[in-house]
Amino acid sequence: MFEKPVITAAIGGGVIGGGWIARFLLNGYDVQAFDLRPDSHRLVNEVIANAERALRRLTHAPLPARGNLRFVSSVAEAVSGADYIQESVPERLELKQQLLAEIEQFALSDALIGSSTSGFRPSQLAERMETSERMFVAHPFNPVYILPAVEIVPGPATSQKAVERARSFLTKLGMKPLVVDKEIDGHIADRLLEAVWREALWLVNDGIATTQQIDDVIRYGFGLRWAQMGLFETYRIAGGEAGMKHFLAQFAPALDWPWTKLTNVPEMRDELISRIADQSDAQSGDHSIRDLERIRDDNLVAIISALKFQLWGAGETLEAYENQLYRNAASYVESVTQVHGKPLALHSDTVRDDYVDYNGHMTESRYLHVFGEATDAFLRYIGMGPDYLATGRSMYTVETHIRHVREVKIGQPLRVETRLLGYDNKRARILHEMFGGPNDELLATGEHMLLHVDTIKSAASDMGASLHRALTAMWGRHASLDIPDYAGQPIRAIKMDGA
Amino acid sequence: MFEKPVITAAIGGGVIGGGWIARFLLNGYDVQAFDLRPDSHRLVNEVIANAERALRRLTHAPLPARGNLRFVSSVAEAVSGADYIQESVPERLELKQQLLAEIEQFALSDALIGSSTSGFRPSQLAERMETSERMFVAHPFNPVYILPAVEIVPGPATSQKAVERARSFLTKLGMKPLVVDKEIDGHIADRLLEAVWREALWLVNDGIATTQQIDDVIRYGFGLRWAQMGLFETYRIAGGEAGMKHFLAQFAPALDWPWTKLTNVPEMRDELISRIADQSDAQSGDHSIRDLERIRDDNLVAIISALKFQLWGAGETLEAYENQLYRNAASYVESVTQVHGKPLALHSDTVRDDYVDYNGHMTESRYLHVFGEATDAFLRYIGMGPDYLATGRSMYTVETHIRHVREVKIGQPLRVETRLLGYDNKRARILHEMFGGPNDELLATGEHMLLHVDTIKSAASDMGASLHRALTAMWGRHASLDIPDYAGQPIRAIKMDGA
Repeated sequence: MFEKPVITAAIGGGVIGGGWIARFLLNGYDVQAFDLRPDSHRLVNEVIANAERALRRLTHAPLPARGNLRFVSSVAEAVSGADYIQESVPERLELKQQLLAEIEQFALSDALIGSSTSGFRPSQLAERMETSERMFVAHPFNPVYILPAVEIVPGPATSQKAVERARSFLTKLGMKPLVVDKEIDGHIADRLLEAVWREALWLVNDGIATTQQIDDVIRYGFGLRWAQMGLFETYRIAGGEAGMKHFLAQFAPALDWPWTKLTNVPEMRDELISRIADQSDAQSGDHSIRDLERIRDDNLVAIISALKFQLWGAGETLEAYENQLYRNAASYVESVTQVHGKPLALHSDTVRDDYVDYNGHMTESRYLHVFGEATDAFLRYIGMGPDYLATGRSMYTVETHIRHVREVKIGQPLRVETRLLGYDNKRARILHEMFGGPNDELLATGEHMLLHVDTIKSAASDMGASLHRALTAMWGRHASLDIPDYAGQPIRAIKMDGA
Repeated sequence: MFEKPVITAAIGGGVIGGGWIARFLLNGYDVQAFDLRPDSHRLVNEVIANAERALRRLTHAPLPARGNLRFVSSVAEAVSGADYIQESVPERLELKQQLLAEIEQFALSDALIGSSTSGFRPSQLAERMETSERMFVAHPFNPVYILPAVEIVPGPATSQKAVERARSFLTKLGMKPLVVDKEIDGHIADRLLEAVWREALWLVNDGIATTQQIDDVIRYGFGLRWAQMGLFETYRIAGGEAGMKHFLAQFAPALDWPWTKLTNVPEMRDELISRIADQSDAQSGDHSIRDLERIRDDNLVAIISALKFQLWGAGETLEAYENQLYRNAASYVESVTQVHGKPLALHSDTVRDDYVDYNGHMTESRYLHVFGEATDAFLRYIGMGPDYLATGRSMYTVETHIRHVREVKIGQPLRVETRLLGYDNKRARILHEMFGGPNDELLATGEHMLLHVDTIKSAASDMGASLHRALTAMWGRHASLDIPDYAGQPIRAIKMDGA
């Protein structure tokens, strides 16, 4: 849809605006940002740092080169030449209406304009606009740089083409656009959230529950369910084989029970505000907001990564995003320059917290995980991509010899150098060396025998000519490398008395 | 609190009752179950099968021997001699009141009596009881065998001692008891759920959103947040450094906005019931309820396992539960009998879906994962438990040689045999052989050199006398074993033309 390079504009650099800026930048788009508040630069940079940390944990797929961020001093400057403009200023209708009118005045005629509003309807927002056909609500969820959902709400005047262009662009950012067909105050999510919030305030107000108790029933209970199926699919299962109709018929009466405080909202008196704030301090006060942000981000990354293995929900979105990154970077490993007499540098990684054991050292299986990823990169490099695999051929590791040379600790960046030790029509013997630590020292070595197989017959087979050619070319550069004295060596026996 | 063996009783064997039964059985407690419905046995057994599958995925910790399940034909028989009784019959007040009165008549005088009611207050339930001091609500969340939360709600007559005994017992089942101090219709969770449910029904009723759209904003958006932090802690972060008071002051006005349908509940006309059922069919109909249950369970297992690595929320509960299982089974590896001239059988596993790659075969790093777990079992076996580690000593793997002999596929049970190949004051060289498949064939071998280290100095050190003694005893039994010809062998070089 967009021709590259796409330029984006962000108006408003708070937590939400900063999240958008991070998404744009980390996906390779330049950003022109405008926010008048004095601490906006600092805040945005903190959000970007959090976002980069989270994204590096969420995926090992090759990210494009980061875009450039330019803070500018006017709305006109921010939107000038921008293809996609996102508004994230405070939730005041008058302010947003005025801003959107100003944006359209200086924007390219076909620029898309999204609003982060959590409550206003697009028709309200567009009241002062003349080109509202390209304006829509694009309501994200905090943290914007991790959570995939974004509600796209077109107004009556918004063109179908604008909706489709927005959907396509936001998908490229790794998001899951959810188009809401009818505009309504609060769209969908905030109506649901507001209902829970209101009920929760009553529970605290009436002294039934503390903020901690409310949070706990959510995160140890139904919140776990909702991370992967929503309300209806969950209840569908609860209804069992009898189906959804049965469930509805059975549980409909409960709606008439006097369970909820329907008719009113507790007044936010100072006393109630203080009570909630005090309870929240008691609950979470051991952690600073910065701590909590990291804990939240790490948890979300872990949850979404776990769902990726299930190919479900937010994990499926991540998988699709990664596939796109790999496709976009088809030239990724190909672009690695082979230098005569030097090993290849195809893979790097960072020791994440799920890599370490109770000692804080990298778990032993993670060494093979890292070497396995390096082997995958090696195989892609010699041309074993999806097309090759689709022909029913692959290369399997049939033997591995790992040597642990130095301790590897959490947070440490790792890089792997790979060399070819030998090959024939069916096999390749390779050596990975893992480096890292303050002095870029050798941390571990992995020697591997790879066998070419016919995956349908599950039998060894000759490799395709393309792979063989690639290995021959590589051998031309690696044959002259000194072979380390540990390569080809066994694990030595321990001399035993009397054995 | 309870002396073993604890006998439990389950009255009502639906989805919830079945979930309780599964929790009891899998944690080693006998269950006396009563349900009049003809398909109750089948349903309960299906729930137990799902529960066992989920629990085996959730933890590798050694579970106690499964308890015995006995279906009985009366309430009196079910509660006879039982220490813990859980009522999970349909949500009708009269029925529950009558049942609880019958239960107390035949129960042990100090038996605990919990009700799974999602809505009734304990004082209502106890109206016909004479010994209501030991009755309380214990409201779990479906699937009961995975989700840790259980709301414990004491009535005015419930003794503190009963609450404490219930909390202790439910914790042993791997649950997270949340004591609700004040009784109220719907306790805490169902008030929140009801608020969302009501709002969701309105959205469908008014044609704003479909069931799919509602589920999607939840599971791609705020549901991911709620799996790990609840409402208040999430908003605390959103409020940023200015704190919770600031957040409340800023967002309080939104409560007065006309975002939600406060005043009424849509009538569950046939037309609305059909519309929801049709939308739900369109959304989820490709999957049977059995499929959906498995998908849900696998997702929940994956999410909770991911949170375990973060030591947070439901993952922290799992970690505590596993520690308890390991403690309870201190005799676990010790109980393995060493047979002269036979390798040790210390570890078994099953190939889970997160063990396999795009080929459906076990990912290479998972071989080392399995061997690493076998090495951990070996180390526990020779006495390297928490006490030993606490003295700043450990054994690290310094070298590994894996041979992949046969393909290993998803769902396959694996067992590992371990033998000692040699040892000295600082080292042990061991060999794992992984067996499995239809003919219990050799699948892979792992040869490992373990080095004893001073974890504070990060240097090799002599092992403690107890470890050395254990190795000497083991050597007495293993020295005579034939050493396989592949042990101590290197990865052989590939002969290269002209190399």
